[in-house]
Amino acid sequence: MATTDVLPTLRWEGTAATGRLRMIDQTRLPMEVVEIECRSVDDVWEAIKSLRVRGAPAIGVAAAYGVVLGLQTRDNDADRSQFDDRLATVCDHLATSRPTAVNLFWALDRMRRTAANRSGTSSAECLGALLAEARAVEREDREMCAAIGRHGAALLSDGQGILTHCNAGGLATAGDGTALSVIFAAAAMGKSLHVYADETRPLLQGARLTTWELMQRDIPVTLICDSMAGWVMKEGRVDAVITGADRIAANGDVANKIGTYSVALLARAHNIPFYVAAPSSTFDLSLSSGADIPIEQRAADEITHGFGRQTAPNGVAAYNPAFDVTPAEYVAAIVTERGLIRPVNAESVAAVLEPSSKTPAEPARDSSRETRAS
Amino acid sequence: MATTDVLPTLRWEGTAATGRLRMIDQTRLPMEVVEIECRSVDDVWEAIKSLRVRGAPAIGVAAAYGVVLGLQTRDNDADRSQFDDRLATVCDHLATSRPTAVNLFWALDRMRRTAANRSGTSSAECLGALLAEARAVEREDREMCAAIGRHGAALLSDGQGILTHCNAGGLATAGDGTALSVIFAAAAMGKSLHVYADETRPLLQGARLTTWELMQRDIPVTLICDSMAGWVMKEGRVDAVITGADRIAANGDVANKIGTYSVALLARAHNIPFYVAAPSSTFDLSLSSGADIPIEQRAADEITHGFGRQTAPNGVAAYNPAFDVTPAEYVAAIVTERGLIRPVNAESVAAVLEPSSKTPAEPARDSSRETRAS
Repeated sequence: MATTDVLPTLRWEGTAATGRLRMIDQTRLPMEVVEIECRSVDDVWEAIKSLRVRGAPAIGVAAAYGVVLGLQTRDNDADRSQFDDRLATVCDHLATSRPTAVNLFWALDRMRRTAANRSGTSSAECLGALLAEARAVEREDREMCAAIGRHGAALLSDGQGILTHCNAGGLATAGDGTALSVIFAAAAMGKSLHVYADETRPLLQGARLTTWELMQRDIPVTLICDSMAGWVMKEGRVDAVITGADRIAANGDVANKIGTYSVALLARAHNIPFYVAAPSSTFDLSLSSGADIPIEQRAADEITHGFGRQTAPNGVAAYNPAFDVTPAEYVAAIVTERGLIRPVNAESVAAVLEPSSKTPAEPARDSSRETRAS
Repeated sequence: MATTDVLPTLRWEGTAATGRLRMIDQTRLPMEVVEIECRSVDDVWEAIKSLRVRGAPAIGVAAAYGVVLGLQTRDNDADRSQFDDRLATVCDHLATSRPTAVNLFWALDRMRRTAANRSGTSSAECLGALLAEARAVEREDREMCAAIGRHGAALLSDGQGILTHCNAGGLATAGDGTALSVIFAAAAMGKSLHVYADETRPLLQGARLTTWELMQRDIPVTLICDSMAGWVMKEGRVDAVITGADRIAANGDVANKIGTYSVALLARAHNIPFYVAAPSSTFDLSLSSGADIPIEQRAADEITHGFGRQTAPNGVAAYNPAFDVTPAEYVAAIVTERGLIRPVNAESVAAVLEPSSKTPAEPARDSSRETRAS
């Protein structure tokens, strides 16, 4: 099945003045594939808040279109200063939908700057420019996903078994995702792959989302429990592992969904290459190593009450780190939209991310931000 | 809390003629601690069938008492040949409750032999002998558990973090269990331990049962997802791992709940000793290595519909091996009721299990039997 036959995670339909944002309601996956139509900024706010759309890139795209919706609901011939006031209100409102999502603020900032750069235009003209900017956010995300797929596809060979953890797929982006984009690109080249998807406790993104995406593309997938990853490797079913990343330090240490570290160690024990696919925006060069990455601790009830039913004693203590850090030495290569980082170390990271500089830059990013949980 | 303060998994109350079997209804754990009273062989049959009592040793004990219940419901002065006919009927009926449970048949055979050896006695006398035999089955199981605890306690040190997988506790036996017996014995010696319990997907025996047993004994326990085991080791929280076993080959390869193999590899990667606790009856010396152990494959819906809610797409393929095999080289010691096997290899296994023989015996056990799933 070609990529274009797959229902996109989100899509804009119509003009700036009267268009609508449609998106897959991810809270109803995998049992139902339902698109919702967002007709107002409140609809978008609710969709982000309720995790109908999730994944940092996809949230950013949704928020950008949400700004357009928030400005089309009144007379577009309104006074431009009123339009700008409404823009500020809409952006402030959307920013409260998921306060830890960095891409949300980044996308809203792009929309604010777009309007500021067109201060002399009419409200209607500015609204058109804002839709164009939202489309650009979406297009750039698609292009990033496609470039990751292009650079990574050569890592996978015909007939291989591939294990992945969590969901680094198209549902988290406007495009084909990151780790899954590599798999989709390899499959599009005619390579026959069989994917083993870790269910990924506690939130089951692998069971709920990764299997669904692969089935949509007719790529053979087998769901396993996380505890089975080592055994399927031992049985010879896995030739390569590929995951996404939530944050990568300057030396190539990778923070990703809890369980990734175990998978990387198990891959090493079986001489299986462990790959990571992530856009350059995932790197935080202000962190010299993974030891500097703060680890979000999440609520015990995700483990004890995770399926609509209590499955552990009242009052039991549970430890629920949202992610772990895999040392660079276990990562065979990192696939970015700018190319492969291999071997993975501070020099090779700098060479790909900062090709014009001999030393890594120190961007002024907030190193205390927590990585998103899903 | 002393062992005697803990509600036993099962207990007989009363005489042979009018007594009753009481047991914890494990299907209601951990939310409710409810004892059920079995007054008839049908009650026991239903309890085994419905997993109210589970674990090979506990099933054997329950079945032995079930025979007594099945013979007390009519006039004990009945003709002895009628009594023997009823015994045969009762044993045949109980054998259908859990057809793959080897201990069930073993216990029923003991009861049959007990009656056959007393062919000249009255029905009432024979019933008394059968109750004594059932009590012996229970007592021997308790003693086995206690001996495992005694031999293994020295492996654990004050202040250590201990990781365990699945449930190898008292709920599967008439006594303190196997792996948990070692922890209980070390705690009883005054050692302060902190246990990390893998939840153990797909059936969550760790979340539901192991945490409950440890909380009952006031031993600090933290529940984690299986995918977190490697990370808690990396964080330095774990000093030793101990699990039970379902079957052990002559060379010391250990079949146990799926996920055990991964835990053993992760322990090795962090230089943490990995111990196994199991009675000598777990060894199958007819199998030269773990490669000969057949692996039970279980239904996909344990993974896709495990908690009363569907959590994966309709029609998704799932792979659900019930257990895996950990090579002897990863096992630092096996704790049996006869003492420690250390290092773990064919010679040391034979030395502990067959102390009178220089070569392993070849018992006529059915090597095709499947290991119990819970």
